[in-house]
Amino acid sequence: MQPPAALARYQRALDDHLRSLVAQTVTLDLSRMLAYHLGWQDISGKPATHTGKRLRPTLCLLACEGAAGDPARALPAAAAVELVHNFSLVHDDVQDRDEKRHGRDTVWAVWGEAQAINAGDALLALAHLALAEMPDAEAAAAASRILNQRTLEMVEGQVMDIEFEKRVDIGLDAYLEMISRKTGALFDAALSLGAVAAAAPPETTAALGRCGRRLGLAFQVRDDMLGIWGAESRTGKPVGADIRRRKKSLPIVYALDRAESDERDRLAAVYSASDVVSENDMTFVMRVLDALGAQGYCQEQAAIHRAAAMAELEASALAPAFAAEIREVADFLLERDF
Amino acid sequence: MQPPAALARYQRALDDHLRSLVAQTVTLDLSRMLAYHLGWQDISGKPATHTGKRLRPTLCLLACEGAAGDPARALPAAAAVELVHNFSLVHDDVQDRDEKRHGRDTVWAVWGEAQAINAGDALLALAHLALAEMPDAEAAAAASRILNQRTLEMVEGQVMDIEFEKRVDIGLDAYLEMISRKTGALFDAALSLGAVAAAAPPETTAALGRCGRRLGLAFQVRDDMLGIWGAESRTGKPVGADIRRRKKSLPIVYALDRAESDERDRLAAVYSASDVVSENDMTFVMRVLDALGAQGYCQEQAAIHRAAAMAELEASALAPAFAAEIREVADFLLERDF
Repeated sequence: MQPPAALARYQRALDDHLRSLVAQTVTLDLSRMLAYHLGWQDISGKPATHTGKRLRPTLCLLACEGAAGDPARALPAAAAVELVHNFSLVHDDVQDRDEKRHGRDTVWAVWGEAQAINAGDALLALAHLALAEMPDAEAAAAASRILNQRTLEMVEGQVMDIEFEKRVDIGLDAYLEMISRKTGALFDAALSLGAVAAAAPPETTAALGRCGRRLGLAFQVRDDMLGIWGAESRTGKPVGADIRRRKKSLPIVYALDRAESDERDRLAAVYSASDVVSENDMTFVMRVLDALGAQGYCQEQAAIHRAAAMAELEASALAPAFAAEIREVADFLLERDF
Repeated sequence: MQPPAALARYQRALDDHLRSLVAQTVTLDLSRMLAYHLGWQDISGKPATHTGKRLRPTLCLLACEGAAGDPARALPAAAAVELVHNFSLVHDDVQDRDEKRHGRDTVWAVWGEAQAINAGDALLALAHLALAEMPDAEAAAAASRILNQRTLEMVEGQVMDIEFEKRVDIGLDAYLEMISRKTGALFDAALSLGAVAAAAPPETTAALGRCGRRLGLAFQVRDDMLGIWGAESRTGKPVGADIRRRKKSLPIVYALDRAESDERDRLAAVYSASDVVSENDMTFVMRVLDALGAQGYCQEQAAIHRAAAMAELEASALAPAFAAEIREVADFLLERDF
């Protein structure tokens, strides 16, 4: 499917703003790492265009404009949300020892772990500096409170995620709580901050925040599905990639919850071992997922969260044209195959 | 020497405030890591008292009270500065692979690198949430801007420090620039934020910030000296510990700058190698440092920065009783042998 028009519409202003923020860094090594990670440079410092989809800041700007605000007023908030997102990516890659992200070497893979930790820290500090540029001081204070609470939630989600790596008795509720923090919180912040920048009524801000939270959940469920059933040609990862990494994503948490006796024990054993996952075990896991209807369950969950997100969007009474664009972004999030 | 009275006077209110901030975390693993790192619990979660000296927040509270502010108004800022300091310690320990800090296992040594990165991230998010509680919105905004700029500077200092690990041609100016960021920036923030909380005139805030910056430089130079000539009985580290770690602290940067031909080459070779530093090389490095008067040079540098700090303190026209207490903290910083 085509990317929603809103992504392209805001991209330029957003990247200009992000660039002006990153320009505050004075240390060459840091500036390079950030420009590389944000997709503006290759490793050697030459110009490049590998920028991300900028989903979260686009949602922020749409929320602002839809709540009758000038999107320019939400630009610092949108940039802050994108920087927080990128802070989490850089640190996640160090934590997960992921050497590639969208086909490019990760920051730690190029500059080492220590400098990658610094790069992430700098992105978080820059996010806060971004918010300080919001034209209205009261809005800036409200936005800062929301963003900080959501950032803390996100870190807590990451703490839970890493703690789950050691367990096979996670359960669906705990998993939902984890992704609500790890992924939902920042989508919540994205839409909330757009409303705050537009000085929208508190009910609108709250409804949009809940809409974002649900979108984040649907997005994460979709991501979990792609990690197992996504086509390599689109995701850049082989089918079953997340099984090989023993990632306890939703299909696995579901299967561990639903499988019975012997099957459950063998599944738990596969996910507790630490050697390379054998082809035999791969086949076994895929077969269990199939037998339990894990893909259908995930599809259903994504649909539930998407529907809830759309109901909150309705409740927020955003201007119809912008609500339609948020719906388009939601469809894109959920139907993407990469 | 006795610790200054101000440290003890503020400790209780400060730790109560820090505890209330950390109580915002809901994930057990995170709460434990933070309570452990901040010295309130041992590894198993039992109450402990291993709290740090709380130098930076004490300076913040003294600056506020000395500028005729109610120190309670500076408590959120003081807590924020202490949390930023601790964020940097937790990440530093991961980056340097230090397994001990003041005789206790570091967070990463207990919970692993991934969770320690999260713990540091959470401390930074909590620092920002702390600032939001400043009673005056305008002061909160100003404090936030200063703290974020100083935090970014600190991260840049850390980037430089790690980059210096690969080099033997650092030079005294670049080293000074690095420690001004890595250590000076947060002492600057500590005193600046106290003045901001007291709604002091901008000149007072600026003078106190410069005072803090110089104090930080003097503190770091002293730290560098202790890393080489400190007594194990006091520092907990063997004499020459920083030579064994090939830490390019001021005495070494000075020696690399001043040594000539053969000696300089051998020194550079010792600091470029990656095997264990031999006893022979240890003796050689200590001898070169002695011959070049590195200890005297450092002593002199510390004295220069301390004097400059005291001149700025004078210029800030702080209430004499509180200026005297800041001087006492400065003396403690610089005469400490641990």
